[in-house]
Amino acid sequence: MSVPPARPRTMRAIVFSGPGRISVREIPSPEPGPGEALIDVRLAGICGTDLQLARGYMGFAGVPGHEFVGTVREVASTADRLLTGARVTGEINLGCQDCPLCADGIARHCPRRRVLGILGKEGAFAERLTLPVSNLHVVPDTISDRHAVFIEPVAAAFEILDQVGVHAGQRILVIGDGRLGLIVAQVLASRGAAVTVAGRHESKLAVGRALGLAGVLMDDSPVKERFDIVVEATGSTGGLDQALARVRPRGTVVLKSTCTGATTLDASRIVIDEVTIVGSRCGRFEPAIHALRGGDVVVEPLITGEMPLDAGADAFDRAAQGETIKILLRVAA
Amino acid sequence: MSVPPARPRTMRAIVFSGPGRISVREIPSPEPGPGEALIDVRLAGICGTDLQLARGYMGFAGVPGHEFVGTVREVASTADRLLTGARVTGEINLGCQDCPLCADGIARHCPRRRVLGILGKEGAFAERLTLPVSNLHVVPDTISDRHAVFIEPVAAAFEILDQVGVHAGQRILVIGDGRLGLIVAQVLASRGAAVTVAGRHESKLAVGRALGLAGVLMDDSPVKERFDIVVEATGSTGGLDQALARVRPRGTVVLKSTCTGATTLDASRIVIDEVTIVGSRCGRFEPAIHALRGGDVVVEPLITGEMPLDAGADAFDRAAQGETIKILLRVAA
Repeated sequence: MSVPPARPRTMRAIVFSGPGRISVREIPSPEPGPGEALIDVRLAGICGTDLQLARGYMGFAGVPGHEFVGTVREVASTADRLLTGARVTGEINLGCQDCPLCADGIARHCPRRRVLGILGKEGAFAERLTLPVSNLHVVPDTISDRHAVFIEPVAAAFEILDQVGVHAGQRILVIGDGRLGLIVAQVLASRGAAVTVAGRHESKLAVGRALGLAGVLMDDSPVKERFDIVVEATGSTGGLDQALARVRPRGTVVLKSTCTGATTLDASRIVIDEVTIVGSRCGRFEPAIHALRGGDVVVEPLITGEMPLDAGADAFDRAAQGETIKILLRVAA
Repeated sequence: MSVPPARPRTMRAIVFSGPGRISVREIPSPEPGPGEALIDVRLAGICGTDLQLARGYMGFAGVPGHEFVGTVREVASTADRLLTGARVTGEINLGCQDCPLCADGIARHCPRRRVLGILGKEGAFAERLTLPVSNLHVVPDTISDRHAVFIEPVAAAFEILDQVGVHAGQRILVIGDGRLGLIVAQVLASRGAAVTVAGRHESKLAVGRALGLAGVLMDDSPVKERFDIVVEATGSTGGLDQALARVRPRGTVVLKSTCTGATTLDASRIVIDEVTIVGSRCGRFEPAIHALRGGDVVVEPLITGEMPLDAGADAFDRAAQGETIKILLRVAA
């Protein structure tokens, strides 16, 4: 066996240290624990949850980032040595491996879980990260780095298909023309449903139209049409009430946004119209990798730009702008 | 054919004329339209929705009341003449009979529906009411008037079984020890689920225990146990948030209360735990009649008292008291 390259003692990383406090720092490089891999991050993506965390959601402090592609630098167990050098991405939930939920294979809902860059686990906006080898997925050669960063959010969109029956002939509205909305809409359209994207940005709706998605500008005029399924992907606390106004009696609202702050709504509408609301978070990576490889989901038009890791707060400012869809952080060439 | 008895020109009724304004008045007696029956009300029940309407919910003005048993006095069509004299109760939603939802047999969700004593249709807290004959159900002789009044709320409880899979081994929490909670708990327990009722009234929980239902007093101590299904039957806007705090990840909350006022909640919990929320309103009468006849649902212990129609506002005051479960209004001996 070859000797592994010397492990750097420090690395550059974006660090959150409180609401709105974002800096780029030199911090200690992580060391892989038992069963873990040390990964050199190549490219990472800024998602809506990261913007919420920057505002104080979940009280997160540390290194954010959970959408990434990287190269395995080192593994803790010789049994995993074939992974060394592989280009990978990783599932972001780390279960305790000791509770009934983990035993059932849904570590995503383990009550003691850590979540990469979100809860108790340093994330991907850094030169290196560690993850259990069991969380990793090797990225097929036919998926570029720029597209592999989207495997995690595409998996989150596919989670809807694991929860709600979606089929041809259904009328579906996706509220939100951002990062997640334009991915969710493509995933649902791939099942033959008639999907409309509603948003506040003509330029983003135009991106959707180029992908074959009908788009409507949301304004304050009264809503008339009611949809079988409405997916809330607004990233704001008002999204649920907007979705309830657009779903038909006995229809389904899929709630995707995790936001800091309280939501206010007229809950009697849920009862009177017998609406079903389904909360939807992370999904399995396999169908996402399959869809990106096969072209069912196209992400290149969603990339507004790449910025270097050292851009730090500037990258978050740009990601938060209304006309931005996706900002990628380039960590290594 | 015998000559029908003379139709009285006026009748006594409870009338809502604005938030908190409840009076007993002599008003014109209704006349049956095409396809309708004129019914002499015998006994009616005050439900949580009636208390909400009295506070201004839905801006209702007129005669409230939608839980009743009565005798058919007259029918508009000779084809229905066999119903004359029958003891009946009735489904409360009157569809337009002209839209796709009515064509599908779910007039309960017709966008132009009227609802007995709730929306655009004078209700049962009166000596007489009219309903389409197609809404009526003949009450079997083995169900007394006092129990027949409960057919409508028992049907609303059975609606849950039409929406959510309930089976033996599931742990279910019903929040609310009132009228609806103690009926819902019995219906769900009849399917073999392990049902616990949570409430704020020891005396009502004791009624539940006598019916075989586990009961826990809700206080401000932290909630530890999480349930597969939580049914919200609190009658207050805070009920949804309470239910979300008690459901397990990927569990189901059934929302039953229709309340005036806004609900505030942390919607990110719905997403993170991937909870499903199901709004649930009116149900089919057939399983309710079957359950009351067979003893699956026992309602006699839920009757706090009978009061005469002329008690008017006093009956609503008593129905709203914390220790009260169900107040019946006696219209005719």
